[in-house]
Amino acid sequence: MSNKVVIIGGGAAGPKTAAKLRRENPNIKIEMYTQDDIISYSACGLPYYIGNVIKEVNTLILRSPDDFRKQNIEVYTKSRCLKVNPEKQTVLIEDLLSGNKYEVGYNILVLATGAIPIIPDIENIELKNIFKLRTIHDGINIKKRIKESKKAVLVGGGYISIELLEAFVSNNLTVTLIEKNSQVLKMFDEDFSQMIAEYILNKFPNQIKILTNENIVSFEGNEKGEVKKVITASGKEIETDIVILGTGIRPNTDFLVGSGIELGINNSIHVGETMQTSINNIYAVGDCTDNFNLVTNRRFWAPMGSTANKEGRCAAINIAGRHCYFDGVMNSTTTKFFNYTISMIGISYKDAIKYGFQPESATVTKRDKSGYMPNSGIITLKLIADKNTHLLLGIQGVGEGNVNQRINAVIPAMIGKTKLETFMNLDLPYSPEHSPAIDPVLNAAQIICSKLKN
Amino acid sequence: MSNKVVIIGGGAAGPKTAAKLRRENPNIKIEMYTQDDIISYSACGLPYYIGNVIKEVNTLILRSPDDFRKQNIEVYTKSRCLKVNPEKQTVLIEDLLSGNKYEVGYNILVLATGAIPIIPDIENIELKNIFKLRTIHDGINIKKRIKESKKAVLVGGGYISIELLEAFVSNNLTVTLIEKNSQVLKMFDEDFSQMIAEYILNKFPNQIKILTNENIVSFEGNEKGEVKKVITASGKEIETDIVILGTGIRPNTDFLVGSGIELGINNSIHVGETMQTSINNIYAVGDCTDNFNLVTNRRFWAPMGSTANKEGRCAAINIAGRHCYFDGVMNSTTTKFFNYTISMIGISYKDAIKYGFQPESATVTKRDKSGYMPNSGIITLKLIADKNTHLLLGIQGVGEGNVNQRINAVIPAMIGKTKLETFMNLDLPYSPEHSPAIDPVLNAAQIICSKLKN
Repeated sequence: MSNKVVIIGGGAAGPKTAAKLRRENPNIKIEMYTQDDIISYSACGLPYYIGNVIKEVNTLILRSPDDFRKQNIEVYTKSRCLKVNPEKQTVLIEDLLSGNKYEVGYNILVLATGAIPIIPDIENIELKNIFKLRTIHDGINIKKRIKESKKAVLVGGGYISIELLEAFVSNNLTVTLIEKNSQVLKMFDEDFSQMIAEYILNKFPNQIKILTNENIVSFEGNEKGEVKKVITASGKEIETDIVILGTGIRPNTDFLVGSGIELGINNSIHVGETMQTSINNIYAVGDCTDNFNLVTNRRFWAPMGSTANKEGRCAAINIAGRHCYFDGVMNSTTTKFFNYTISMIGISYKDAIKYGFQPESATVTKRDKSGYMPNSGIITLKLIADKNTHLLLGIQGVGEGNVNQRINAVIPAMIGKTKLETFMNLDLPYSPEHSPAIDPVLNAAQIICSKLKN
Repeated sequence: MSNKVVIIGGGAAGPKTAAKLRRENPNIKIEMYTQDDIISYSACGLPYYIGNVIKEVNTLILRSPDDFRKQNIEVYTKSRCLKVNPEKQTVLIEDLLSGNKYEVGYNILVLATGAIPIIPDIENIELKNIFKLRTIHDGINIKKRIKESKKAVLVGGGYISIELLEAFVSNNLTVTLIEKNSQVLKMFDEDFSQMIAEYILNKFPNQIKILTNENIVSFEGNEKGEVKKVITASGKEIETDIVILGTGIRPNTDFLVGSGIELGINNSIHVGETMQTSINNIYAVGDCTDNFNLVTNRRFWAPMGSTANKEGRCAAINIAGRHCYFDGVMNSTTTKFFNYTISMIGISYKDAIKYGFQPESATVTKRDKSGYMPNSGIITLKLIADKNTHLLLGIQGVGEGNVNQRINAVIPAMIGKTKLETFMNLDLPYSPEHSPAIDPVLNAAQIICSKLKN
């Protein structure tokens, strides 16, 4: 193998690939190009920086360009990739400071260009104080603005809006969340989505409003060009000092159109389990790639920071000449609203039907420790299994107790094709401080089993 | 099936069997005999009652005899089973109040007689204020005594002693723990046992002493016959106001010798996966039975409250004529010392060698959330896998962070025979509030994988 590896992208997956590849091979030449000036940071931490849980934005940065340079990894910031030419094995780079364009040759190319926000087509969206949240600079700008704000509008009811809700109410803003669908967190079943919305509204009845089935038609500003009002399709006018667009993201792959590299779902880069694209010496990792869904056995697009790290590591090992396979994901997601955990794995009941399964489910609301322990918390779990195969399809979980201790037991059971009958007797460790004698997730499995026997 | 079911034992497994059987079959005749006066309680909660985390002992009692009687389950307290006669299908019961003995016929018998403490052969062990901790009455007596005590000695370094350490130091006693082996919690590898002991000693340097490799040769009392001193083999004299014997338990099966019911390891009752004993219409559940170890594929004895509940449920379903199988356990254990979790699943490194595996391990010390989250806690995990098969063999975990969220992911992976290479890429849900981008347990798997490739 010739030995110049060019990595495009400096968020999570690119730096992970570079760092792991350097550990695998001390001599291989590695260059990393990124359009940003800050690299190797946790975008997932930005809501906590905005909410002031994290005081210094630098805390979110794992490594600086100089840290990489010390490891003999060349880093070019403010350098955007405009084109890939697989035949010539070159990329065209634009220096964003000078405007100069130049070609860079590679033996192996790693695409880690991430995802970019989808900006909806709404009148006056160019007004000041309408933000997206994707980069560190977005986070810094939002944090600055909320210090002068009393009212906020969050557009979209996904995870990021839930996390920003916490950040905003912690900073004493009143917040209106506007979601175009009939429920927030639309991947959840309706019962869970409703439970989550009710929890949030009950916790801050005077500070938070949630509007569903509501579209924004325009923004209105003041004489300084600052957003001041949100106008909805149903005729509502909502005053605000700041707007955050949580209206989705898409793979950052426009520059690849026509390159010959196969794009898949949502124009994400199609990769195999070695993280190779349709062209052998071009790898792709992180939010710009498609994913294999281990529950539906279909490819889909599920950008996640954890996946980006695993894919970067996998690509690096393969590039270094060892073997590593990344089989796929479960669409696992989790967050917290203050101390209320919200998690989901696999597919919902409604999606199970959509994908041709015959789902059965059980919902249990239980304490996360023995009932007599005074510090136990309540959790609600909805476990879903297939009637035909008795295999687990997914779990949704919420509550102030330890939800993810249970969620994490479901994931390997799905991977290992463990049937309900075996799962319900799993030897999860028990002590009054950690669990009831029968863990709630096992109890849910017992209930499904009892249902299936009838 | 004729329809009189007699259950011997009223702790956890017996009442669970009775309650589940009644739900399965509203008409079957159920009688439960127990030598205690209190039934259906959580013995695992007793250390928290002693420590005053739980104020009222009644909190530990799930159901009273009258609760069962309302469900048409006859309960006979203070009624000990002296003999089982499988040929006649009778048990001989002694009424402990009157001394009367009488025979009771059964169609199906369920043995749930639990375990009893091993009382070591030490001089003057009959002195006052030397307690075992097994029944609710033991707990009440200990709690009474510690109110008048300043110094305590715990004999044995198992889980129960760790839990009692917390209870005793919370009540401002100074405590000496005496363990005959070279380490406390002897199922752990030495490095973890040492880490745990150091944590405990560092937290209460003036209140707790741990002596290992130390045997007690005698107790000394005062003129009232109350224990006042513990004399060890190495010549130490330790003053004390109370002694707790955590010197192990054994199956309560002496009354079965000669009955024809097969006894196994430690004289536990040998059961199959339907919870039937060697005699078809006699079932056994809970601490009195043997267990199948799903890691070593050997039968062993691992009494646990969680297992007792699962076995009771399983037996009830089978007795009711449906089918249920309890495959076995992983020797999963967990506890807490204040907010420091101590957990273990499967087998240790040292035991892996003993059982003929070729273990490789990785120990990681990591935060349980993203490093930049201010409320993250540190955990240390030691993951063990087999070099030949790349299958997981066990995990040990300690720390003030969320250990069991990780532990619980290992158990189904062991059941599902998930190899390290797949396990390390498990899609455990990630958000900064719940996990680093690469979960510590996956990181440990990655490290073992890297070791195995060399």
